[in-house]
This record gives sequence, structure tokens and C-alpha cells, in this order.
Amino acid sequence: MHASDFTATAPLACDLLVRADAVITQDDERRVLTDAGVAVADGLVLEVGDYADLDARYEPVQRLDMAGRMLLPGLVNGHTHLPMTLLRGFADDLPLMDWLQEHIWPVEAQLDEELLGIGARLGCAELIRTGCTAFLNGYFHEHVTGEAASACGLRAVLGEGFFAFPSPFFPTAEACWETIRTLQARFADDPLVRTAVTPHAAFTVPPELLEASYELAESLDIPWQTHLAESPTETSVCLGKYGMRPVEILRTRGLLSPRVTLHHCVDVDEREIARLAASGANVVHNPASNLKLCSGMSPVQDLLDAGVNVGLGTDGASSNNQLNMFRDMGLAALVGKVRHGDASAVGAQTALDMATRNSARCLGWPELGRIEAGYPADMIALDLSSPNLMPVFNHVSHAVYAATGMEVCMTMVAGEVLYLYGEFRTLDVGGLRREAARAAKWVRRASGK
Amino acid sequence: MHASDFTATAPLACDLLVRADAVITQDDERRVLTDAGVAVADGLVLEVGDYADLDARYEPVQRLDMAGRMLLPGLVNGHTHLPMTLLRGFADDLPLMDWLQEHIWPVEAQLDEELLGIGARLGCAELIRTGCTAFLNGYFHEHVTGEAASACGLRAVLGEGFFAFPSPFFPTAEACWETIRTLQARFADDPLVRTAVTPHAAFTVPPELLEASYELAESLDIPWQTHLAESPTETSVCLGKYGMRPVEILRTRGLLSPRVTLHHCVDVDEREIARLAASGANVVHNPASNLKLCSGMSPVQDLLDAGVNVGLGTDGASSNNQLNMFRDMGLAALVGKVRHGDASAVGAQTALDMATRNSARCLGWPELGRIEAGYPADMIALDLSSPNLMPVFNHVSHAVYAATGMEVCMTMVAGEVLYLYGEFRTLDVGGLRREAARAAKWVRRASGK
Ligand SMILES: [Zn+2]
Ligand SMILES: [Zn+2]
Repeated sequence: MHASDFTATAPLACDLLVRADAVITQDDERRVLTDAGVAVADGLVLEVGDYADLDARYEPVQRLDMAGRMLLPGLVNGHTHLPMTLLRGFADDLPLMDWLQEHIWPVEAQLDEELLGIGARLGCAELIRTGCTAFLNGYFHEHVTGEAASACGLRAVLGEGFFAFPSPFFPTAEACWETIRTLQARFADDPLVRTAVTPHAAFTVPPELLEASYELAESLDIPWQTHLAESPTETSVCLGKYGMRPVEILRTRGLLSPRVTLHHCVDVDEREIARLAASGANVVHNPASNLKLCSGMSPVQDLLDAGVNVGLGTDGASSNNQLNMFRDMGLAALVGKVRHGDASAVGAQTALDMATRNSARCLGWPELGRIEAGYPADMIALDLSSPNLMPVFNHVSHAVYAATGMEVCMTMVAGEVLYLYGEFRTLDVGGLRREAARAAKWVRRASGK
Repeated sequence: MHASDFTATAPLACDLLVRADAVITQDDERRVLTDAGVAVADGLVLEVGDYADLDARYEPVQRLDMAGRMLLPGLVNGHTHLPMTLLRGFADDLPLMDWLQEHIWPVEAQLDEELLGIGARLGCAELIRTGCTAFLNGYFHEHVTGEAASACGLRAVLGEGFFAFPSPFFPTAEACWETIRTLQARFADDPLVRTAVTPHAAFTVPPELLEASYELAESLDIPWQTHLAESPTETSVCLGKYGMRPVEILRTRGLLSPRVTLHHCVDVDEREIARLAASGANVVHNPASNLKLCSGMSPVQDLLDAGVNVGLGTDGASSNNQLNMFRDMGLAALVGKVRHGDASAVGAQTALDMATRNSARCLGWPELGRIEAGYPADMIALDLSSPNLMPVFNHVSHAVYAATGMEVCMTMVAGEVLYLYGEFRTLDVGGLRREAARAAKWVRRASGK
């Protein structure tokens, strides 16, 4: 018998009522609710609360019973290069510049749209499988990634990358701006796909082009993102070329603002941290990639303490070699402690904030990264019957320290279930595997390996 | 039609023939075979080779088709405290001494054998799930862990821990030695369970007791293990108490030899590394635990270059918070690069060696950690249809950098399958979950949290 049987109130309509052992809301109070439910309608969360109460008041079209699981907001990947998933494990144990110049760039130059599409879809499969529901991308032929994301139901912010001009892709700056405008127009009616202006880095793109591209971002009112201060080597290059450290190049040109998202910021000093904080610029931390390429360890807790919004990203699969936000959450927390000489640095709640709410702001999509009434219904479930999640003392600790990401048993974007217990609803993973194997053969041949 | 149809040779008998896309053998040549097979009889590997060839020559009692998967040796966990799995996520983001003295030790003092058994079985479930087939343990009431391991088919080396005497467990040293002798006798007929002498650490156990316990290990001809040089704090304590750094305490007492396994060795200098190498003592690296407790980063590549045998361990789940050797393999490789300022430090093959052959030597069980004719049939399979393992350029890179550990779809010890696609054949994980939930309630009450 429902509580509603005793009241005059008519049952409330919703598309979906989800039940779970616990919900990590990531709302402003960081509430973790147990025996909880989430009512969803029109792709948004209608209400989060006690399941019995919601069950009594709502009459849902569909139900999703996640008893024995915990819900959390879909994770938001602040920095990746999705098509590079094709090059996972292609070249390892090399420093950044060697890895790029000797191994990655020569192959990349030969990739066509078909191959990039395979890489992008492979990346989408891994993101969905490991509970990521939105990502900020940077690569070439970005419509390929946009179409892959849209087709499989993920949110994407596309960053058509550029270096100096003329380049193999763009004879002039105007040609590049035109591509970005076209990209924005192409996905204008797609609620899942947005666009950002994406110069590669301060050491590869001349300052005046950085500035011109920032003006484009302002005129289109979209985010502006770039790699910045990834390693001491980059700092040396910038000092040699411009007599300035990377952050100074941006600051002197007026390119630090809340519109800006900077990837890495490993080699930043105290004064630069203060300036980043004052400017409102966002930073994305990529611990796996920074370790693997031996770029260093970002002073994440210092950035956070100064007031910088620091999100989290995986970077590309070829320098990680995963696109698994759970892995990078754990790394951010573990490595942050040793970086700062303080076992309380980058605690579990901080790491989860970085991977959800903070990354959402880095994407210019601040309504993502929480489970709260009125916000998008992007949610994932972790199966608490996985031995590594037993027993449960603290749900947030488990998400950050104990989960591998493979405990994700449900991934939902805007109320649509993309993955449920091994079943990919928007992707043919078996077919993808065969395509990936063929593509890998091609890459091996093309690289003469 | 079999090739054997054309030959005079009678088919060879074996218990099991396993087929896989690839076998990472970890043999002396580190061969990775594709389209490969492994023939098993009496718990040992009979032959590893081309599958079609083995299929033609053997007539197995059973077959295990792991097409689409890759085999590797069962991983060997060089350092853990299995019953502490009960305290996973109970206290996080704290430095080593606080964490031990304020949170862990007060609860541990109250744990009875029933609770320890739940923790131990929980640990076994996670080890099996994530492809670990043997472990070196250290805790109290070690027969509990021995029985858990034996019942679920895992190999264990039991380390009954002790501090100074009298202690709550042992009124005298002789009482402790008696317990160790009893432990050894109890499992004398069990091929899966062995014993090691296990003083807690050089800063908690007086040097004369370290020496006496080493003599016991010699007389029983079993390994001797202890925590050593885990953090600069420990070094300070040792300098204050004995005027010597941890390695010196052992060296001056003659306690460095191939019989010895030292856990952590984070705070060791160049001279100590040379002395460890010269002595033949083994070291176990525990990167997750060292990061989480902010103990530091061990100079792993320096130890290896000097000739020290360095294995890999997870430490206890309460300071990790996983017992997942894949996670620690990835961390060893990633963190090792930044520790040494060299992107080629602790490469994928090195990390895999640490988690297999090197750890096996740390356990005093050097025949583990490889798939090779005449060696124990301890093997695991990784499912290559997991999106994060596509495409495949390099199997070893995937095992270290791309796998989470949850791609393990088969775990085998001595030819017995313990886990196959979600089915635990030697453990009731559902029942364990209910027991763990009750135990966690008890822990929460006992700690007043
Ligand atoms: Zn990048
Ligand atoms: Zn330990």
C-alpha cells in the first residue's frame, strides 16, 4: 500500500525512478543519501531523496532498481584526445618530446577520418564503460569525435586543435576559424555537443595567434582551452623563444579568464598560482599522463587552496594508457599527498569534486557533475557486490580509493541508459573490436614497426 | 583431422589444455606467444607453445577455451595484511603514525578470530578476482589467514607478526616461536600454505629479538620478513633509539641475506642500496600504500640497477585501499618515472617482472611467477574484449598500463580454476558480503564512530 493512498495528492509523473543503496549527490552540501532514489523527467533530475518517500509519491513510466549499488554523478573528463585511443600502447616508456616527435606525430599525420572515427568510438566505449558521461576533447577533424559522441549518447566539447599557420590542415588562420564556426553550426541543434577554441600550446602557437583565437572564443561565447606548463622542458622552450614562462605568455596577452581552461599546469610557481587564481582561469590535472611522460607532479592542493578551479582529465589513451576517470581520481589523491608531503592533501572528497563539479566548470558546462533537482540526469552506478568495495564505511572513499572503474554497471546521460551490466546500448563493441584490430594492423604497417 | 593421425606417436595425456590469443610467459626470454596453448597435468605446466601444435599432440581430459583472452602468470603479492581488508576505507587521508595509533591499532586490538576470518576471506575474494594467486602475509592469528587461503585455493606464506615481549598475544619470545612452529606444523601437509618469521619492524622490535627471530627462521629454513625504512619518520625513530638508520640496524646484526624480505625500503640511500644488493636481501615495493600514507617514493629503479630483487605488494587494504596487483603494477611504472626523472624508468616489462618472478623470490617460492614447462600451473586470463584493452600493440604494456585488474576472467592455481567469468568456485561471495556488512557495523560500534 502506498503512502499516497492516504493522501489527497495525485501521484506525480516522472519518466524514471531509480533506486539505490546510496547516492553520492555532489550537491553543495556534498550529501550522501542511503536507501535513496532519484526521479527523472525530460532528461533532468526531478527530485533526489529517500526512496520509500519518492516511491510513495511518484508514478514513474519506468523503474531502474539499483539496490546493492551506489549512484554518483557521471564523471566529467576535463582533458582528452579521443581518436588517439587508436594508439593505446603503441609507444611507451618515453619522455614527452621523444614520444610526440618520434612516435606519435609521424603516425598521426597519416590518420584519415575513418581511422580517427574508430579511435573516437573506442574512446567512447571506454568512457561509457568506466562511468564518464562528458568530456572536453582536443584533436583534428573534430566533427568525427562529435559524431561518435552524439551517436553513442555522450556529452562532448569539441576542440579543433591548431598550431601555427600555414599547417597541413589549415593554410590560414581564417580557414581554421571557419572550421571552428562550421563545427559549432554543425552541432548547434545537438544538446550533447558543444565547441571550444583550442590552440595546441603556448610553446607551439605564436602569442598573436593565441590572442586572435581568444577573440574568436569571445565572439562565439565558447570556452578557450590550451595545454599549458606541462613540463619544465616546455618552460625552457618558452623562455628561449619568448623570454617568458608559459603562464606569463598568456597573462601578458590578457588570456587568463574564467573562459579559459589550461591543461596540466605542472610547472607553475607560487606567483603564477596566485595569478591563475585571481584570473578565474580553470586548470585540468592529468596525473597519469604527467607521470607516464615524466612531466612531473602538479601542485594540485596549492592550486585548490589558492582558489583555482581544478578539474581532472585522463589526457589521451596513448599517454595514460586508459581513459578511466576512476584511475585518475585515485592517482590525484595518492600522488597529491606525496607531492605536498601531507597525507591529508587531495583527500577523497576533493578528488571526487575534481572529477565531477570542477571538471564540469572546465568544460564550460557547470550544471554537470552533480545529482540534484533541476540538473541533467547524468548518473552512473557502482556495483557494491564487487569484492573490492566490501565492506562499506565511506562511499566517497570507495569511489576514489577502492573502485577501479570497472564496477560501473550503469551509465546514464540525460536520463538515457547507455550501458547496463555489460550491455552497450549505443555501441557495437564486438564490431568495434574487429575494426580496431584492422586499424592497428594499418598503424603498424604505416609506422614500419 | 589431427596432425597426430599422420604420425606413429600416441597422443599425449594431460589434465587440461588451455587455448588463448596470447600467453605472456615470463620465462627467461620473456617470450609472448600468440595463438598459443598451455598443457597442464598434476598442477604443473607440461608444455607451452603453439596451440595448433599442442592440440595435435595432446589428448586432454578437459579444455579451456580462452580465445579472445591473454594468459599471464598469476600475480604474486609480496606484502599484505589480509585480515585488515575488514578495515578498507575505515580511516583515510592520514599520515602513517596517526593512522596506526589513533585509528587502526585501537580497533585491531578488539578483533577476534571470527572477524579476522571475514577480513581474510574478503581479501582472498579480491585477490582471486584481480588475478593474484599467491601472497606473503603478515598479521596476527595467522592460522586464520592460512585456512582462508587454503580453503579458497590460494597460495599463502603466513607471517605471524610480533613486536617486543611481553605483548597481548605473546608473554615471552618462546611463546611466539612456539606459535610459529605450530603454524608450520599445522600446514605441513598443505602444498598451498607456508610460513615465514615476521618481526613487525626495526623500530618496534628490539635488535636482539630481531636476531633471535632470524635464528629461528634459519633453524626452520623459512623466510624472514619485516617492514623496513618505510618513511623518513621511521628513520628518525631508529636514529633516536639506536643511533642507526634502519638498514644499518639489520646489517650490523648480520640480518641481511637472501632469506630476508624487506617491505617498503622507501628511505634508503645510495650506500644502503649497495649493501642491500651485496647481501642478496629482497625488497618489496608497495607504491599505493607509500603514496597514501605519504611515506614517499621508493628508488625502485636504483634498487633494481644495483641488482636487488624487488618484488611488488599491495600492503593491507586499509592503506591502499585495494588488494589489486594490477593497480600497484601501474603505479610502480608511473610513479617510478617521476621518482627517477626518467620516462624510461620502471618500464612495463620491469613492472610485470616485479609482480611475478621477483615477488615469487620474495616469498621464497621462486618457481612461481612464470608459465613454463615444469613450473606450477598458476595462471590468469585477461579478457581482451574489454574496451580499455583495444587495440593490442603490446600485450605487456596492456597488462601494466591499460588493465585495471577487473579484466581478469579466469584465475587458476595449480591447475585448479578458482574463478571463471564472475563465478567464484571456492568462495560464497554473496554470503561474504552479508558477513562483511555485519562485521563493519561491529567495527563502527567498537570504534565509537
Ligand atoms: Zn593533452
Ligand atoms: Zn605492511
